[in-house]
Amino acid sequence: MNLREAIEEKLKQLKSNYKPQEVEINTEQLSLNTFIEHTNLKPTATTEEIEKLCEEAKLFGFRGVCVNPTFVPLVAEKLRNTGILVVTVIGFPLGATGTPVKAFEANWVVQNGAQEVDMVINIGKLKEGDYQYVYDDIRAVVEASKVPVKVIIETCYLTNEEKVAACVISKLAGAKFVKTSTGFGTGGAKFEDVQLMRWAVDGEIEVKASGGIRTYEDAIKMLKAGATRIGTSSGVAICSTPLNG
Amino acid sequence: MNLREAIEEKLKQLKSNYKPQEVEINTEQLSLNTFIEHTNLKPTATTEEIEKLCEEAKLFGFRGVCVNPTFVPLVAEKLRNTGILVVTVIGFPLGATGTPVKAFEANWVVQNGAQEVDMVINIGKLKEGDYQYVYDDIRAVVEASKVPVKVIIETCYLTNEEKVAACVISKLAGAKFVKTSTGFGTGGAKFEDVQLMRWAVDGEIEVKASGGIRTYEDAIKMLKAGATRIGTSSGVAICSTPLNG
Repeated sequence: MNLREAIEEKLKQLKSNYKPQEVEINTEQLSLNTFIEHTNLKPTATTEEIEKLCEEAKLFGFRGVCVNPTFVPLVAEKLRNTGILVVTVIGFPLGATGTPVKAFEANWVVQNGAQEVDMVINIGKLKEGDYQYVYDDIRAVVEASKVPVKVIIETCYLTNEEKVAACVISKLAGAKFVKTSTGFGTGGAKFEDVQLMRWAVDGEIEVKASGGIRTYEDAIKMLKAGATRIGTSSGVAICSTPLNG
Repeated sequence: MNLREAIEEKLKQLKSNYKPQEVEINTEQLSLNTFIEHTNLKPTATTEEIEKLCEEAKLFGFRGVCVNPTFVPLVAEKLRNTGILVVTVIGFPLGATGTPVKAFEANWVVQNGAQEVDMVINIGKLKEGDYQYVYDDIRAVVEASKVPVKVIIETCYLTNEEKVAACVISKLAGAKFVKTSTGFGTGGAKFEDVQLMRWAVDGEIEVKASGGIRTYEDAIKMLKAGATRIGTSSGVAICSTPLNG
C-alpha cells in the first residue's frame, strides 16, 4: 500500500467508524513527573535560565529537557549521567525551511548531544496535498538524526483530515511520536486532537501533547486522551513536589 | 578597537549626545513600491499563495519578495529576469539554532536562488552580553551566503542599549542592513527604533523596517525614521496602484 492509499484508507475510517477513546489513568499511582519534558524554547532564553531548567529537571525527575538547538551542548553537559533526555527542536517553529537544512540541523544537534528531536512538518506542503514532500521531509530527519523523532504537526492550523494525514505520514516515515503543537502557533494541545492522533497512528507510535499545558488538570487530561509525553514550561507548577520530595 | 570597545563607545554616545533625526521625504516624487519587500512568511503558505505573491510583486514593481526557505526555488524561478530580489530568512524566527546550522541554511538558500538573506541574531546570547558569539554567528552567515545579509535584531525583546549593541555588532560583522523585527515576536517596527538603529550604524549600513507595517502612513513613517527597505505583507494595500498603473 503506498502513501496516498494509506492516507485515504485512514480518512475513510475517520468518516465511517472513528470513535474517540479515553485512557484509564490511575492518578494515585502515577509519577506524572516522568511524563514531562521540561521546556524553554523562548528566543530570549539565557544560559542562566537554561541551567536553572536543568537543575529543576534533576530535582523533579522529569523525563527530559527541551530547548532550542543553541543550548543543546550546554544541556547535554548538565544532564550527563542523569538519565534525563536531551530534547531539541528542528525547523522550529515554522517548519518551512528546506529539507536538507532540517537534516543538517538534526545531525548537528545529535552530534552535540541531543537524544530526541522534535521536528516541525512542512505545513504548507501538507495543506496542498503534497504528501510525498511531507514524508520525504520527515524521513530525511529520521535518517540524519538516528535518534527518536517526534513530528510536530501543529494542529491549530489543520483540519481533522489534515491531522490524520499528517499522523499516517509520520508513522510511515519512521517517527516515534506525533506531537500536537509548537507553542508558537495560534493554539496548543487539545483533548480531542490527542485522541484523534492516537487513533490515527493506531497506537503504534506515541503522542506528545504540548502547547498551553499549564496545570495538573491539563496534564492529566492529556494523559487520558492518550498522550504519553507532556511538553510544558510549567512542569514545576504542575508537579508541585519534587519526585523524591 | 575591538568589539566590546566599539560597543561601549557607542553606548557612551547614546547616553551623552544621541539626538533622534528625521529624514526628509518628498512623497510626491517617491516610488514607494521600490522600497517594499513583498512578504509571506506564514507557516501555512502554499505554492499557490506564493505564486500570487510573485505575480503581485511583478505587477507592483516591488523591490523584492521575501519567503521562507522552502519557497526559494519557486520564487527564484518565478522572478527570473525581473530584477525583483529573491529574499529569504535564516534561523527564523527564533534565531536560536546553532551557528553551523545558520551557515548551512544560508548557503543552501543561495544555492537555490536567494539574493539576500535576513538572519535572526542569537537573542539570548546578546542579552547575556556574549557579544563575540553574536558577532561570530552573523559573520558565519555573511561568509556562507556571500550575498547581502540583513540582521534581524528583534527589537521587541531588547532594551535600547541592547539594540545599539546589536547594531554595532552587525555592522562590524559585515551586514548590509539591520532589520527591526521578525513579525513573530511581541511587537513590530517602531519609529523610534528605526531612528535609533540608523544612528547606531552611523548610516553606514541600511535599516529595514518590518513587522506590523500595514498602511501607507505606516510605511512613510518608517522612511522618515530612516528605513530604506520595508518588509510587509500589506504591500498591495499600501501602494494601492501598480507601479505603471
